[in-house]
Amino acid sequence: MTDYTRILLTARPDKRGIGDYLFTRERVAIPSPAEGEILVKQTHMSLDPAMLGWMSPDTESYIPPVQLGEVMRSSGAGEVVESNHPNFNVGDRVMGMMGWTEYAVSNGKGLNKIQDSISTEMALCIFALPGLTATQGYLNVGKPKAGETLVVTGAASSVGSIVGQMAKADGLRVIGVVGSDEKAKWIVEELGFDGAINYKSDDLADKLAALTPDKIDIFFENTGGPIQQLIYQRMNTHGRIVVCGMIADYLSATPAPGPNWINMIKKRLTIQGFAMPDHFHEVPKLLGQLTPYVMQGKIKYRAHTIEGLDQAVNGLQMLFNGDNQGKMLVKL
Amino acid sequence: MTDYTRILLTARPDKRGIGDYLFTRERVAIPSPAEGEILVKQTHMSLDPAMLGWMSPDTESYIPPVQLGEVMRSSGAGEVVESNHPNFNVGDRVMGMMGWTEYAVSNGKGLNKIQDSISTEMALCIFALPGLTATQGYLNVGKPKAGETLVVTGAASSVGSIVGQMAKADGLRVIGVVGSDEKAKWIVEELGFDGAINYKSDDLADKLAALTPDKIDIFFENTGGPIQQLIYQRMNTHGRIVVCGMIADYLSATPAPGPNWINMIKKRLTIQGFAMPDHFHEVPKLLGQLTPYVMQGKIKYRAHTIEGLDQAVNGLQMLFNGDNQGKMLVKL
Repeated sequence: MTDYTRILLTARPDKRGIGDYLFTRERVAIPSPAEGEILVKQTHMSLDPAMLGWMSPDTESYIPPVQLGEVMRSSGAGEVVESNHPNFNVGDRVMGMMGWTEYAVSNGKGLNKIQDSISTEMALCIFALPGLTATQGYLNVGKPKAGETLVVTGAASSVGSIVGQMAKADGLRVIGVVGSDEKAKWIVEELGFDGAINYKSDDLADKLAALTPDKIDIFFENTGGPIQQLIYQRMNTHGRIVVCGMIADYLSATPAPGPNWINMIKKRLTIQGFAMPDHFHEVPKLLGQLTPYVMQGKIKYRAHTIEGLDQAVNGLQMLFNGDNQGKMLVKL
Repeated sequence: MTDYTRILLTARPDKRGIGDYLFTRERVAIPSPAEGEILVKQTHMSLDPAMLGWMSPDTESYIPPVQLGEVMRSSGAGEVVESNHPNFNVGDRVMGMMGWTEYAVSNGKGLNKIQDSISTEMALCIFALPGLTATQGYLNVGKPKAGETLVVTGAASSVGSIVGQMAKADGLRVIGVVGSDEKAKWIVEELGFDGAINYKSDDLADKLAALTPDKIDIFFENTGGPIQQLIYQRMNTHGRIVVCGMIADYLSATPAPGPNWINMIKKRLTIQGFAMPDHFHEVPKLLGQLTPYVMQGKIKYRAHTIEGLDQAVNGLQMLFNGDNQGKMLVKL
């Protein structure tokens, strides 16, 4: 085999959202790594909400967009199949930004080896962006204290499920907002959340009030949507709102308005947005904060794995529709 | 003279807003101070936006409301006319929470003496809530850096005018939003702001863009209103939004929605609300931060003084209509 498949971004998203019209598939020859380079055969691609931002030509976003004609950007994991690099051996498992491609040549920069004790799935579901994002947002922005109440939206997502489990481990009351009864059951029965709200079917105000008798100290926002206003109104004095994602609005031409700021003064709230590219230099510190939770068996995960590079577009659509059950991965 | 006048809050604000229907005037006998007490003849009452909150029965606000039948709460300054307290002498000028009254008996708690070198007006316009609020919000929440751009709404107000002048002294570019051409002229020509926007008559988006070529790093919000969204959209990465007041919405039955939170993530913004009762224990520190600006002649002020306790209701109406030119004071 001398050819491989890769998928290029060749259009910008419009009102059709995510679809095949955005991408072009091509077959190219497998390159040989030069001195100081390695050839990686990707085994698992990660699909993440941030990828929508990378496709858009918005120059104000925190990472430059993928240029038209470039391989679609994504993180993933793979195996070193050729090495001309002193630090990598054939057979090493590595993770990093690989893109929608079966093979990638790299000088090693930005690639991390996966330790033998960790499965590739676990590396991508916890020790990659999901866990780092949860750690930065929950611990360093949210500043949790035992006994407080945390509400997380997108609670069954890769980030949200880790946030909730860290908070449970730290002695907080944790309520998760999800989009299906199956996800509600999973976060309560498997992950140990204190309660779940299905935003598609529950009476939001009543259920939120019933599940947060001491109101809310930390609001970890992954989604946006109408429940945002209700959670905001139930914040306690000196509450913290961590804005990690607004997936409900990313595809909307007219994003929904947010809450009025009077409550910011009455309750002396802090709302803080964050994005991981600001914190890539802190990854060792973040891993140091995250690892004890994992080592103590506090963090469960589930992967929603689909097969084949050609399924990546479908996988992204599932992610944005909330149809996935677990961290969205594409196995190659 | 053995009687004096005081004004009680005897109704809660409704859709009529501020008006005579809220208050009852009464004449009572001047009390004698007991051992450890002083009698103060109030000379200047301060009228502040926070007073609207104190009139409302909203239990979620940060200070308990004034009870019906109590003297309306306000800060002010006066002269000690009788003293049975070892730390106060007849003739001392003092400031603190005195209420809508010509005379007040106090045990001295919460009262501060006004130094001889400072006029009573200056004490109320700078070294009381306006200056302390500006200092906490601008320095400690806003965390300014020389070269940054700050936009302040309510820029001709007691707090806003101090914020802008501190920022100019620190080497920031400062743009103020005001409600009249007279105020615009005052903040630019007298206080040295780099520009002013009249939110009632200017083309807000165009003028804001023209006056903030490097966009905006700190947004000091005193008012709310439609310009909030425009300023929010022009924030730079890692910008800070200090929410100090929302006077445009306090009297509204349906406060205007705020901006969508997508920008919080894209720009990694922080929005923080604050209120001075959280910081009363830090007054010495705040005065230590504020005083150097004043001593270096960087902080000008103007008082809008009206005469007589019976004019207090009119004064509050002027304040909420933005008809005052300077810190609203009532001279008794």
